[in-house]
Amino acid sequence: MNRTAVPPPVTLVLEAAEAWLPARMEAVEERLRLLAEGHGEGLAADAGATLAAGGKRLRPMLVLLSAGPGAGEAAIRAATAVELVHMATLVHDDVLDAAPLRRGHPTVVARSGRHRALAVGDLLFSRAFAELGRDGSGRQVELLSEASVALALGEMAQRRDAFDSSISAERYLERCELKTGRLFECACLIGRVDRNGGRRAGGTDHLAALRVFGRETGLAFQLLDDVLDVTGPPERTGKARGTDLLDGTVTLPLILARERDASLSEVELHGLDAEGAEAVCDRVAATGALDDVRGGARRRVALAKRALQRSALRPEQRRLLELVADGVVERYS
Amino acid sequence: MNRTAVPPPVTLVLEAAEAWLPARMEAVEERLRLLAEGHGEGLAADAGATLAAGGKRLRPMLVLLSAGPGAGEAAIRAATAVELVHMATLVHDDVLDAAPLRRGHPTVVARSGRHRALAVGDLLFSRAFAELGRDGSGRQVELLSEASVALALGEMAQRRDAFDSSISAERYLERCELKTGRLFECACLIGRVDRNGGRRAGGTDHLAALRVFGRETGLAFQLLDDVLDVTGPPERTGKARGTDLLDGTVTLPLILARERDASLSEVELHGLDAEGAEAVCDRVAATGALDDVRGGARRRVALAKRALQRSALRPEQRRLLELVADGVVERYS
Repeated sequence: MNRTAVPPPVTLVLEAAEAWLPARMEAVEERLRLLAEGHGEGLAADAGATLAAGGKRLRPMLVLLSAGPGAGEAAIRAATAVELVHMATLVHDDVLDAAPLRRGHPTVVARSGRHRALAVGDLLFSRAFAELGRDGSGRQVELLSEASVALALGEMAQRRDAFDSSISAERYLERCELKTGRLFECACLIGRVDRNGGRRAGGTDHLAALRVFGRETGLAFQLLDDVLDVTGPPERTGKARGTDLLDGTVTLPLILARERDASLSEVELHGLDAEGAEAVCDRVAATGALDDVRGGARRRVALAKRALQRSALRPEQRRLLELVADGVVERYS
Repeated sequence: MNRTAVPPPVTLVLEAAEAWLPARMEAVEERLRLLAEGHGEGLAADAGATLAAGGKRLRPMLVLLSAGPGAGEAAIRAATAVELVHMATLVHDDVLDAAPLRRGHPTVVARSGRHRALAVGDLLFSRAFAELGRDGSGRQVELLSEASVALALGEMAQRRDAFDSSISAERYLERCELKTGRLFECACLIGRVDRNGGRRAGGTDHLAALRVFGRETGLAFQLLDDVLDVTGPPERTGKARGTDLLDGTVTLPLILARERDASLSEVELHGLDAEGAEAVCDRVAATGALDDVRGGARRRVALAKRALQRSALRPEQRRLLELVADGVVERYS
């Protein structure tokens, strides 16, 4: 469904590591498929469709790349676990938004109602930890559960802030860190700890470097996602422009635009309809604030890449992670 | 709020093990309180009320009793984790039922809406695994995540079966095992595995015996809970009679009553209002089916207690677990 002639960034990474990465990514897909089939009619019918609907699989790719070509089965499981947590939150988000489509496929809530969708989300969550339990380390469980805690706190913060157009940039970034940054961080670290909780390679500096890389890449990803909500085009994003505004979610584009066009502070988010939301998007874009947000995302990608130089990763592995970080920006430019 | 003169069964167990159990149960409460306070305004406001609202804490008690008086901090954490998973499912159930009250306190969904309630449930889930992660074993994570998977599958099965009055007793029991039995089972096993995944005492037979004890006690608990939904009284159960029927949940009392009074097969669950549901409860009770269900629960408690004799537990520990199992029946007789 990708209409651009340029191959998507994820494809570039797969090609650059074709000797080992595609096979390992396929192993993750295979685990996800097995999990969908392994729980009888319940999960097969509902989660199966969700799992099969795909997505960029950025998070499992980060797990595998950080773990490196020599990592064993445990890295596959960790990658699967991280993607399962991500999917669980998507299924729950769709329950709250009563969203009809995700990635062009009917959502679980649209197919089967909110009761089942809530249970499917809980199941995917539980399955994520089961995936680590078999031979994962306590440290891996700790990393994934801390990231899941952050996701839930981020969702709460977003709800608390909803329809409040006076939200600050700091508050917005705090939310992004909880909702996106922490799981990216977790993805970069979870493949690097072995079952005894020890580190596989490198010391504290190395892990700190991977942590910064994950967080900054995740934040850049989120910033640009929020730009896309303003610019569209819908045929590429798969959702109408201004969806965040309609949900009452104030993001950085609006926050920065307010500083340039004070009349935007007076927009009453509660009363917006789809057309009104698109009109606000146009006004936000007209201020030039989007370039500031894009610039911020690029600076974060640069920061992420610089952090990698302090890691103990081999140059080849670093180069692949840099490609992923670049891809986050490329995708949106 | 307990209006009976007889001390509640849980109190009897606490008294029988006053040298060590009350202090350990209090340590679990303290962990739960810490978790509620440790996540800022978000959790403190919402989950705090849920956590503080209490409950029988049967599951953590089973963890501590199975682990025994000599168990360390890990057993406290395992007990806390099991209760957190239980609470997470309660919060999510309340979202689906839009329930106003639980244990006489406003539910999270009633206080703060379904968005936050869903996130609070996710948070409690994640926190449960974080609790094990710090120094738990992979086997503990596996046990808890398998039980959580079962809970979600049970919820899905209940949804699939909703308003289908032809559901069989086997199907009902399968659901009870998923929704209640497995977490009780987990509670009896999770305190018995140490951080290296090994068993603390006893062999395979011992663990199998604890497993049977947990499952049968849990099933008895669920059967009698379903009887209470038919008999009330509401001032004791905290909810109106016939709540299950109004949710479309067909339970064993109705299934067995149908066999004695064929006209009950023709009840159209979809059209029931509160008054109609109470009338069906009266018809179910009139068949005498409730005594069959109670008898079944007593047989399961007997089976649970017999299983304990095959365990490697010391007689004192066995006696305490027997008291819990008896309490499940006493509470309802």
